[in-house]
Amino acid sequence: MRVLAKDLGNAVREQPGGEVELAGWVHRIRDMGGVSFVILRDRSGTAQLVFEEKPDLTLESVIRARGVPALNEKAPGGTELRVSSLEILNRAASDLPYQVNADTAKIGLEAILDQRALSLRNPKIRAIFKIQATIVEAFSACLRSKDFTEIKTSKIVGSGTEGGTSLFEVDYFDRKVYLAQSPQLYKQIMVASGLERVFEVGPVYRAEKHDTPRHLNEYVSMDLELGFIESEKDLIELEKEILIYIFDEVARKNGPELELWNAAVPHSDAVKKSPTVTYEEALKIVNAGAGKTGSSTGRIFDLNPEAERILCEWSLREHGSDIVFVNAFPRRHRPFYTYPLAAPEGGEASAALTMSFDCLFRGLEITSGSRRQHDYQALLDCLPKFNLKAEDMAGYLAVFKYGAPPHGGFAIGCERLTQKILGLANVKEASLFPRDRKRVEP
Amino acid sequence: MRVLAKDLGNAVREQPGGEVELAGWVHRIRDMGGVSFVILRDRSGTAQLVFEEKPDLTLESVIRARGVPALNEKAPGGTELRVSSLEILNRAASDLPYQVNADTAKIGLEAILDQRALSLRNPKIRAIFKIQATIVEAFSACLRSKDFTEIKTSKIVGSGTEGGTSLFEVDYFDRKVYLAQSPQLYKQIMVASGLERVFEVGPVYRAEKHDTPRHLNEYVSMDLELGFIESEKDLIELEKEILIYIFDEVARKNGPELELWNAAVPHSDAVKKSPTVTYEEALKIVNAGAGKTGSSTGRIFDLNPEAERILCEWSLREHGSDIVFVNAFPRRHRPFYTYPLAAPEGGEASAALTMSFDCLFRGLEITSGSRRQHDYQALLDCLPKFNLKAEDMAGYLAVFKYGAPPHGGFAIGCERLTQKILGLANVKEASLFPRDRKRVEP
Repeated sequence: MRVLAKDLGNAVREQPGGEVELAGWVHRIRDMGGVSFVILRDRSGTAQLVFEEKPDLTLESVIRARGVPALNEKAPGGTELRVSSLEILNRAASDLPYQVNADTAKIGLEAILDQRALSLRNPKIRAIFKIQATIVEAFSACLRSKDFTEIKTSKIVGSGTEGGTSLFEVDYFDRKVYLAQSPQLYKQIMVASGLERVFEVGPVYRAEKHDTPRHLNEYVSMDLELGFIESEKDLIELEKEILIYIFDEVARKNGPELELWNAAVPHSDAVKKSPTVTYEEALKIVNAGAGKTGSSTGRIFDLNPEAERILCEWSLREHGSDIVFVNAFPRRHRPFYTYPLAAPEGGEASAALTMSFDCLFRGLEITSGSRRQHDYQALLDCLPKFNLKAEDMAGYLAVFKYGAPPHGGFAIGCERLTQKILGLANVKEASLFPRDRKRVEP
Repeated sequence: MRVLAKDLGNAVREQPGGEVELAGWVHRIRDMGGVSFVILRDRSGTAQLVFEEKPDLTLESVIRARGVPALNEKAPGGTELRVSSLEILNRAASDLPYQVNADTAKIGLEAILDQRALSLRNPKIRAIFKIQATIVEAFSACLRSKDFTEIKTSKIVGSGTEGGTSLFEVDYFDRKVYLAQSPQLYKQIMVASGLERVFEVGPVYRAEKHDTPRHLNEYVSMDLELGFIESEKDLIELEKEILIYIFDEVARKNGPELELWNAAVPHSDAVKKSPTVTYEEALKIVNAGAGKTGSSTGRIFDLNPEAERILCEWSLREHGSDIVFVNAFPRRHRPFYTYPLAAPEGGEASAALTMSFDCLFRGLEITSGSRRQHDYQALLDCLPKFNLKAEDMAGYLAVFKYGAPPHGGFAIGCERLTQKILGLANVKEASLFPRDRKRVEP
């Protein structure tokens, strides 16, 4: 009967002298002359195997070992297995291209990604994806508790909703279609279908040529949309609740994984205190701040990466939270379907503001959201200002012609949230099989 | 303060004479001369609104109504709202292209899919996706309880794993890539990474020209893979547990939705009794059966749709379960990575059998799975028999060169399972936004 490495201590207490079986990978081999120690790694952790004779093993081979567990203060976990029989389930070739048990800091990102099948065996690297699994589970559980329904929508679309500049084209039988940039239209259809509150966790695609530590061409978007809201402020409150739920679950379930990265999630009290500032206020804070680098003498005119970093530092200093919400973005920065704030008195149409927001976490935008325009005529009226044509948008517009409630939503980038929880330098580290302009393997 | 339609009865009991607010869609309007009744539909159900004067409303408009709830035996649910104020949040155009509150049986499938944004408003059609949400949630919850980790893998692959005949091609910057047919390679990498047990719920793509009631070009695959198994029999037992978990959850959460379709899920006792027959036995049963149609005088040489139907009828008759597992498929029917059963004595290599299985439910294959070949040399040896070249498969093979445990897995087609639970005639009905050869909208 197989036991997991983490349960070896229990086995020796529950049935002293009884034989048990461990199975897993050969993590380290230490030959001490008369006796050999092998560290075995399984999904739960590691355990020490003791061999009277030196076993014929290679690193990363998969083995099954039977023997009697015994207490040993010097063994990791305080228990070791004195092996009586060994079976090699799969012998690893000895020319490992990548040292699995090495310090990850010494291995470059490209090597980690090129050798993904091996680099994921490193417990510290695998920990990233244990935490990501908790994030996805917690996001879903939090929304289900609020009467949201999970949906699965098509990633193949006949046309883009947000303009066609950054779409990947697919050969679909005799025609061209595109990979969806977001489930935006589908979320809105499902709210208007009467489900009212929906969420989806799925891949989205951006054919952007960026190669920065914050961009992926394919990422996991945690999307939601809900009806009967008043403004983006309802959405900001909802996002705080979701983030608290996620952070609490990560803290509860992933203590060992956080420790490997020397990382901590924000406390719920801090999340609650996170400030909301308007886009205009945000730029004032950024330009008043002393934290500007490089362009520190120049004025910052936009929420660029430097501005995001300065804002989060300001928020932590002034409000005790490294999360900050920015709302009331000018219309020119948001998609056509964003709901307007009343234009400022005497202001120009181009200066009109929107019921939109971003969430910045530890210096990085992790969320964009807004209340959406749900009035059919208002949508028709705004299209020309965005150089869009009603005939190209018929599928989108039909949703609003026949009764859509006031609604809005947002999306949290799963890899960016993972990245910032752990303090990873590059978002690609938080994607199992990242896709960038050059990388489509493995 | 808004209440949901289903809570209107509680509201009148908890605070008699107090005003409440309902919000939702205008489902029906009945003008009785002195008084008008409007059925309002929200995410929880329907409620009757009573107006002293005929309100100026169109079907499917979104409204907010305040008033005092009152008991009325004749109202649906036994309570109605006597409206004192009405707000039209969004007026629906009066030229509805589709009668939302009609009997769905009278509306053809093409109309339902063409008008997806409206047809989903029909409670019976929306019920399909409430049940689908439960299926996805239950699949995930069952596997998490067994120490499986959820993964999210790329849907963009540099090359196909199972041969290149049915792949959609994507323009990816300066090169061609493909939409993944399955997360097969990635599941296997993640098992070998040391997670040992992984699952993924995500889209998969098949560029097949089929247009049948059982095929989709994009579907939601509920995939899993786990290490340290002995044979496909371990997988069959696991699938029984998962199906029982899913069916029990659907029965517990979706009683009203099942009732709309006059449908029932199998009882756990029946699932446990589901037989496993070999491929050879299955063909004997099929050819002995009296249930053959069309080709009823001819011999059936393959597990075609007719054979799947006959087998499930046989299983229900003989074993009290409309689920049947078929294992030991001949090698020619399975992908190259399928683990072999020992060749039958004196048998030819081409007649060799595999540790593979299908699960048939109510006459339809919902699952294919197998133990996988994890031995590097054995994989290298088998490639030529499948006309595959090691150099084209380097990414795949690397996983096995450096220590992969014995492992296997399977996938359940989410839409097919939904279809068969509800008795839908066409699998497209169970896809929110189905993609077939002609349909890429909405």
